[in-house]
Amino acid sequence: MPRSSLVIGRQPLIEALRAGNPVDKILLQKNASGDAVDEIRLLAKENKVPLQYVPAEKLNSISRGNHQGVIAYKAAIQYHELQQVISFVVENGETPLFLLLDGVTDVRNIGAIARSALCMGVHAIIIPDKGVAPLQEDAIKASAGALEKIPVCRVSSLMKAVDELHLNGIKVFASEMTATKNIFSCNFNEPSAIIMGGEEKGIYPALMKICDEKFKIPMKGNFESLNVSVAAGIILYEVTRQRKK
Amino acid sequence: MPRSSLVIGRQPLIEALRAGNPVDKILLQKNASGDAVDEIRLLAKENKVPLQYVPAEKLNSISRGNHQGVIAYKAAIQYHELQQVISFVVENGETPLFLLLDGVTDVRNIGAIARSALCMGVHAIIIPDKGVAPLQEDAIKASAGALEKIPVCRVSSLMKAVDELHLNGIKVFASEMTATKNIFSCNFNEPSAIIMGGEEKGIYPALMKICDEKFKIPMKGNFESLNVSVAAGIILYEVTRQRKK
Repeated sequence: MPRSSLVIGRQPLIEALRAGNPVDKILLQKNASGDAVDEIRLLAKENKVPLQYVPAEKLNSISRGNHQGVIAYKAAIQYHELQQVISFVVENGETPLFLLLDGVTDVRNIGAIARSALCMGVHAIIIPDKGVAPLQEDAIKASAGALEKIPVCRVSSLMKAVDELHLNGIKVFASEMTATKNIFSCNFNEPSAIIMGGEEKGIYPALMKICDEKFKIPMKGNFESLNVSVAAGIILYEVTRQRKK
Repeated sequence: MPRSSLVIGRQPLIEALRAGNPVDKILLQKNASGDAVDEIRLLAKENKVPLQYVPAEKLNSISRGNHQGVIAYKAAIQYHELQQVISFVVENGETPLFLLLDGVTDVRNIGAIARSALCMGVHAIIIPDKGVAPLQEDAIKASAGALEKIPVCRVSSLMKAVDELHLNGIKVFASEMTATKNIFSCNFNEPSAIIMGGEEKGIYPALMKICDEKFKIPMKGNFESLNVSVAAGIILYEVTRQRKK
């Protein structure tokens, strides 16, 4: 990680947070205390930046400078508020289309997904603030710049994000290999959100439970599976195809 | 490249070729001569293995052993004859579906494409014997093993391969961003082959010219493009969707 993507020390971080600069994550030394630390905790909460408590050794291994018990990773992209994006889309008279990524960790896959999402008119990509690689230069490069153009919403919980989508009348779909319904039998002309699970674990079971509809992508081979970015592209194409009609 | 994937020296290569072991490419020293060299040339032609003339320094840089002016790269997969695959498919009463890759060089993309092709029932992937990275372990890994299951036809020219497809009554489609026809307006219920171009150069103009039909994938953004493996997945899905009906 290049040094330029770090914020080192209490006052620099307070200023970055006050200025609204995007921050991916704050590492705070376990026993750190004082007014500045209290303010960092408060600003992190306000700005919805994840905060992680770590031993001093962890911070020392990242920077030999005077970090005063706090180091943060600058975010390469600006995150958006989910509710704000939904309101904006609805006010513009468009039919919402969102993509949620649950456990998709490979930056090349995230990049390719962002590229497809931009091509297919997805309004925002929704990612959890844990369990996803920070969206830095390599992810942006893999997305051919798409990650800088498409809104990304970072949420503390995908379960809560689905609740928020539901409250806004948006139907939540999930891709599942064992589903009986074929994707082309789904109706994507309504406001829709689609959850993509990671290649290894798939969608988290509790999250799958609160989805409104499950579908499968039709295949010839029964024991084969698609790359997750290819699957996402196919799903978004099917939505676009239906909406073009 | 691991040493185990090389064949070093004249007699070992002659034996490998006689046994029909798959070979990706033969590097032959420019001024090499003798009966063994003549036999290698003949066997290379019979087995359709590309032969490249190189200076001695090139061979020395690959192996310090006694290469006798010849080094070959073992292929990790067995290649198939296009006409044989076509005949096999037709005899089985199936509707042919082929995928041609023109200038797709990234092994991760080739791997993901092979995976989609296997899922979607493509009968063979057709690649040229030049301008494609050798399909070694990294490509097989990226394909999640699909490259070992799906037939791959290696041809000396994609132009000739299209001629062969045409002679067998197979329609050849090409994806082109500037096409006016949307992919879902094409009819893929006939015997079909699809050419995918590389991300940088697209499909070679002369090859594009002999295609029967051009289509575009519908998009919301006008100046955006899809990752080539995602585009291939979408096209193969559309074929599968139409054929499922």
